[in-house]
Amino acid sequence: MKLPQLVQTQFLSVQDVASIIHKIGLKTVFTRMAEYIREDYLRWHDFEKCARVANHSKDGVIELMPISDAKSYAFKYVNGHPKNTINGLPCVMAFGVLADVATGIPEFLSELTLSTALRTAAMSAVAAQELARPDSKTMALIGNGAQSEFQALAFHYLLGIEEIRLFDTDPKATEKLIANLKSTALRLTVCSSIAEAVRGADIVTTVTADKTNAAILTAGHIEPGMHINGVGGDCPGKTELHADVLHRSEVFVEYEPQTRIEGDLQHLPADFEVTELWQVLARQAPGRRDADQITLFDSVGFALQDYSALRFMRDAARELGLGQVVSLIPELVNPKDLFVLIHPETQETTEPSPRPNFCAILAAV
Amino acid sequence: MKLPQLVQTQFLSVQDVASIIHKIGLKTVFTRMAEYIREDYLRWHDFEKCARVANHSKDGVIELMPISDAKSYAFKYVNGHPKNTINGLPCVMAFGVLADVATGIPEFLSELTLSTALRTAAMSAVAAQELARPDSKTMALIGNGAQSEFQALAFHYLLGIEEIRLFDTDPKATEKLIANLKSTALRLTVCSSIAEAVRGADIVTTVTADKTNAAILTAGHIEPGMHINGVGGDCPGKTELHADVLHRSEVFVEYEPQTRIEGDLQHLPADFEVTELWQVLARQAPGRRDADQITLFDSVGFALQDYSALRFMRDAARELGLGQVVSLIPELVNPKDLFVLIHPETQETTEPSPRPNFCAILAAV
Repeated sequence: MKLPQLVQTQFLSVQDVASIIHKIGLKTVFTRMAEYIREDYLRWHDFEKCARVANHSKDGVIELMPISDAKSYAFKYVNGHPKNTINGLPCVMAFGVLADVATGIPEFLSELTLSTALRTAAMSAVAAQELARPDSKTMALIGNGAQSEFQALAFHYLLGIEEIRLFDTDPKATEKLIANLKSTALRLTVCSSIAEAVRGADIVTTVTADKTNAAILTAGHIEPGMHINGVGGDCPGKTELHADVLHRSEVFVEYEPQTRIEGDLQHLPADFEVTELWQVLARQAPGRRDADQITLFDSVGFALQDYSALRFMRDAARELGLGQVVSLIPELVNPKDLFVLIHPETQETTEPSPRPNFCAILAAV
Repeated sequence: MKLPQLVQTQFLSVQDVASIIHKIGLKTVFTRMAEYIREDYLRWHDFEKCARVANHSKDGVIELMPISDAKSYAFKYVNGHPKNTINGLPCVMAFGVLADVATGIPEFLSELTLSTALRTAAMSAVAAQELARPDSKTMALIGNGAQSEFQALAFHYLLGIEEIRLFDTDPKATEKLIANLKSTALRLTVCSSIAEAVRGADIVTTVTADKTNAAILTAGHIEPGMHINGVGGDCPGKTELHADVLHRSEVFVEYEPQTRIEGDLQHLPADFEVTELWQVLARQAPGRRDADQITLFDSVGFALQDYSALRFMRDAARELGLGQVVSLIPELVNPKDLFVLIHPETQETTEPSPRPNFCAILAAV
């Protein structure tokens, strides 16, 4: 006899995700998450992809990002409220679910604020492994906010970056980054302008938060052989790169239809040529071709990375015995009997219970 | 000084929702939920509405249903897997979130399997209060599965229905319903055919689960003055009513663009006239016009009802002190410092920490 399937949802809190990092180390987290992302990108055509669903308001946006293959369904809830920091709140907060496609059971519910920072940095590193010069040692990091330490360490651990050249319009953000990374082996160099930070860097990461069409990087900043990792230009009206930077670069994207709307690519004509990263990973398109080429990863964050992040967090939590079961979905002995959950309540009526009649009896009358 | 806003998510489990029902009684739950639904339907134009986002697979579908006004954002996750009962699992499982539009904080996370059953029945009753004859006493209930008891009791409590005439192709489902409702004041009559159940009924509720284009009700079943509450025909390829039933009725819907795709309406031409229920509630369109008219509520379930259900559950949980805080979103002292959550990990490196350099120094060399 087949055992009844459990309708259980495992919940992973912010503290649980922090515990995973403490227990196995950030280097291992980045390494494994990058592996999960590569695995999933190599199965690109297995996925039912769609644009994210956004509800816009005066000060921000709330989005749902679903994706599925034949086995699993994932979605992420994520907001974007640039003014939140004024009130001491994060600009971006997220959580998500991994569900079983065969039954619809939401099996795994997880925080995704911290996990998104991890997967965004892991994704940037996966792209850079294909697109940056293999001898890259120095990275400029423009924008030293919530995502910056994750970018710095992902590039340190996965690409061997040794020096990070820092710039932010808010010196306190840079101080915070330095305090957070002071115990790592990274050499941290504070710069007084973008031009100074970028000069001579092998990789340039832009991860600023302003919701404006900015031109943080202009063509004058760019040097032959650079790889640009553009992370902060990720929604309509929020860009970081001057159009000339894109014109001078070979541009790579996660999912072209989405990046045309949300990425720095939004300023360019619809026929501007780009390559989807999965093609490079699958060896269907070249990555970097020579040491002088300028490459650009116009990253906006795609649902597939969250699918990978949820899959990794679920597996890591299982291995480490972290997380807890929450009663999100009822467990029923008889699936047609949902009412049993509130049954005692119906005892409230004190009137005598009439016996059920039968139509047959009535019909005979 | 402004106090920092709390980034807290209140979680309401299946047991918590059952507790709310036990504590205040099902009659009060239906009454208040119907009030919340009416309130929100009267603000119809305040809402940003969109079609649900569905990921289809071989055996089912997983959907996200978002909706928002200027204050709150709600979404529901819900699956539909008709074959699940074979494996002892519910066909429909759901949960949802209510978030603050101004900041994006997901403030309230709740089970919605039980709550959906409640809100679906409350919605049916709200529609019937406008569309059924005021002297209605008898309801046929075709389909005695998971939703059936909720329909029976919502109509008992909110419309004064005294007798329910039952039919299901599975006699065990009917037995279960009778066992569940035996302590209520409802008179339950088991019928051996649909025709028998429907004959003479004031209201006919169809709430069957098969994912087929069925014709459970045909024109021959329909009598003048009936109100038909069509609940089970709710996705493409899953209908319950013969087209002639719709042709003979005045048809009311929740949200026309969605019902044209998902409701029994899917078989009718695009110019077949229907009325959105909010118009009736707002007195912008007539409901029932006379005692002989046949009215039909072609219900598919719309995101606005889930918004209402979440709002009610949040308020009821607050009043009763139910639910618990879960760590879904990190609480940060400095919103630009997400890394602080995993900071101790960076201590793992034993190499001496290099002091940060300054570009200015380098430039001077």
